[in-house]
Amino acid sequence: MTADRPRVAIVGAGFGGLRVAKALGGKPIDVTLVDQHNYHLFQPLLYQVATAGLEPGEIAYPVRRIVHAYPNVEFRLARVDRLDLTASCLYASGHRIGYDYLVLAAGSDANFFGMEDLAAHSCPLKSLRGAVRLRNHVLSCFERAAAEEDPGERSALLTFVVGGGGPTGVEFAGALSELVAIVLRRDYRTISRHEVRIYIVEAESELLSMVHPHLRRAAMRQLNARGIRVRLSAQVRGYDGRMVVLSNAKQIPAATLVWAAGVRAANVAAAAGVGQSKSGGRILVVPSLQLPEHPQVFAIGDIAYLEDRRGRPLPQLAPVAIQQGELVAENILRLIAGQPPKAFHYVDRGTLATIGRHAAVAEIGPVRLSGPIAWFLWLVVHLVQLIGFRNRVAVLLDWTWSYFRYERAIRLITDE
Amino acid sequence: MTADRPRVAIVGAGFGGLRVAKALGGKPIDVTLVDQHNYHLFQPLLYQVATAGLEPGEIAYPVRRIVHAYPNVEFRLARVDRLDLTASCLYASGHRIGYDYLVLAAGSDANFFGMEDLAAHSCPLKSLRGAVRLRNHVLSCFERAAAEEDPGERSALLTFVVGGGGPTGVEFAGALSELVAIVLRRDYRTISRHEVRIYIVEAESELLSMVHPHLRRAAMRQLNARGIRVRLSAQVRGYDGRMVVLSNAKQIPAATLVWAAGVRAANVAAAAGVGQSKSGGRILVVPSLQLPEHPQVFAIGDIAYLEDRRGRPLPQLAPVAIQQGELVAENILRLIAGQPPKAFHYVDRGTLATIGRHAAVAEIGPVRLSGPIAWFLWLVVHLVQLIGFRNRVAVLLDWTWSYFRYERAIRLITDE
Repeated sequence: MTADRPRVAIVGAGFGGLRVAKALGGKPIDVTLVDQHNYHLFQPLLYQVATAGLEPGEIAYPVRRIVHAYPNVEFRLARVDRLDLTASCLYASGHRIGYDYLVLAAGSDANFFGMEDLAAHSCPLKSLRGAVRLRNHVLSCFERAAAEEDPGERSALLTFVVGGGGPTGVEFAGALSELVAIVLRRDYRTISRHEVRIYIVEAESELLSMVHPHLRRAAMRQLNARGIRVRLSAQVRGYDGRMVVLSNAKQIPAATLVWAAGVRAANVAAAAGVGQSKSGGRILVVPSLQLPEHPQVFAIGDIAYLEDRRGRPLPQLAPVAIQQGELVAENILRLIAGQPPKAFHYVDRGTLATIGRHAAVAEIGPVRLSGPIAWFLWLVVHLVQLIGFRNRVAVLLDWTWSYFRYERAIRLITDE
Repeated sequence: MTADRPRVAIVGAGFGGLRVAKALGGKPIDVTLVDQHNYHLFQPLLYQVATAGLEPGEIAYPVRRIVHAYPNVEFRLARVDRLDLTASCLYASGHRIGYDYLVLAAGSDANFFGMEDLAAHSCPLKSLRGAVRLRNHVLSCFERAAAEEDPGERSALLTFVVGGGGPTGVEFAGALSELVAIVLRRDYRTISRHEVRIYIVEAESELLSMVHPHLRRAAMRQLNARGIRVRLSAQVRGYDGRMVVLSNAKQIPAATLVWAAGVRAANVAAAAGVGQSKSGGRILVVPSLQLPEHPQVFAIGDIAYLEDRRGRPLPQLAPVAIQQGELVAENILRLIAGQPPKAFHYVDRGTLATIGRHAAVAEIGPVRLSGPIAWFLWLVVHLVQLIGFRNRVAVLLDWTWSYFRYERAIRLITDE
């Protein structure tokens, strides 16, 4: 570390933070990258870990492995305890980190909208640990159902409710129905496929609200063909681990509630003590991605709130975080060089969501696809975006294996 | 289940129990296979999971996937609560399982020889969960050392003591030294390789006591070349999580003690209420592998005690369990057919232990090898013995990757 070089601190090694670190790698700047995990997580494939298709190590990549190419980037495995924007420093796991520029890229956590019973009993799909837990839980439900003699209890063990009909909820439900259809019915002779019920509960009147109505209908058809029960205009209001209570007063006895119905900004947003969005607590930023009263502080990705030209909040998706990370690196270099920062404009390259074998929807600009072509496109795009050659080869191996063998290899219950 | 068919219960889906189940698959017998995990574990490679080289799913294989080929074999994920050899039944997770023949193949657990502080603070290498925990712990030690300012504390974080100089201890120590040498020194610029100390503490006067003295010396040279400190004729007497106390009154400050110094029979052995060996509590069996007073009950593998022709106890190794499993299946069929059971004779096909890249020892009958040929032989033998094509390809991929890239892919800290 050289005393007179500008210091940049980045909180979060997700899609956004990592992009900033890489773009500043090799520049005459001292960069400190802080994350509470020692790995970068490819969140779009978390649901495949949760449904026994992929190993944790296939979608997680050691941060040090990525940044050791850049001598000016230092990684710290630490949790941010406190931010002091006035003194330009933060405290992470007890250590003080001073900065000239700060990038807040800590992402989002599951949003339970204040329902404590949901926080206690549902399974969110936001972390590697949560995905492995959900896998263990789902497989345990089948094991317990196979040994259960009480019909009501058995039925609840075989009922899976997914809260949220966005891409995560739809993809998880689709992958779970495949796990049931092609694997579990071979493994459990005493469980009929028709005993297994999968629900998606969505508060809005349609699933996948971000895609064209044509594709929403295609997704709905593909879900129906797999026997997935979709409950629209319904919200989950409570869950005690046994009974899902809906806003329409209906109740579903279920041993599993997967929570994919919303996210809120990571805790660092509140710790910053700055302006936050009403919904989700995201940090309000100006178009250059700076905080209004702290021009040396940036926020990007899920934790940041910015509206597009039509006044709609930017979606909390990886492409937004990546593009914002690129711009923030450029803006930091511009500020150091005494130039004004540039404004962010999101380039929407499209939406992809997969429901199962040969079934997906894709919207790329004016092009809308559903079925096998969209499904194949989804595979290619996700393989290419994974970090690391080894992870790509490993995922390709597992997908090929699953496809030709009708198999899910990682059917392990690793917790007790 | 047909009422008049003989019923066989097998406790444990390790190398021995699984072999019995497969050999009885398709026969006119109802087989119930009980295990507390839903996977078969390839224990010989556990240490590679613990050193970030392999994923858990590469060495674990779902039991249901193996047995669903046999309609007469039923799997139960359950823990055995109680055995009633007089009434010919057992209770597993509350369910009663009656049998005509019982095979006890529950394996072994770490033996702490009554030292409770070791049980609380050391890391045994006997389960998948333990291996993942050890990986998390080792990687966390490096992270904490990088942030630690106190030199004594830092030194303890970088000191790793392995209790036990058998194959598990030697292989783990070798793999850890490779992890340090080829990966961690790139990742942690502030940690010098020479700060890291790895000890093996062995109670006997030599390492790998089961192989020829020539090979023991070769192993010793290979360990010395890697800077691993070997302390012979010394026992670990205590460990409070900070200080390893040896029988020679020496103390080693260390944040990590890996326990590979001995095993004892699984708890089912004591639950059976039958004769046990003094050392390790193994179930005493006659040469036909039956229990002396319960001819319808067999014990095999690590949980069983039988001596070879020269009066030495059979080693607790996978090949013994596999060969015993084959014989027990045959003996059960013989008893059903009214024939006398056969006696067990162990065919020792050799010993292999790897210390690192190009370094291993191998003893196959009169042939003794060390160095690259033994190492390559070790790779081939372990690949072939793994269950499942997918797992073999995945392990081959990770080994190839590690070999050519000097890399360990699974450097993830997945616990908090």
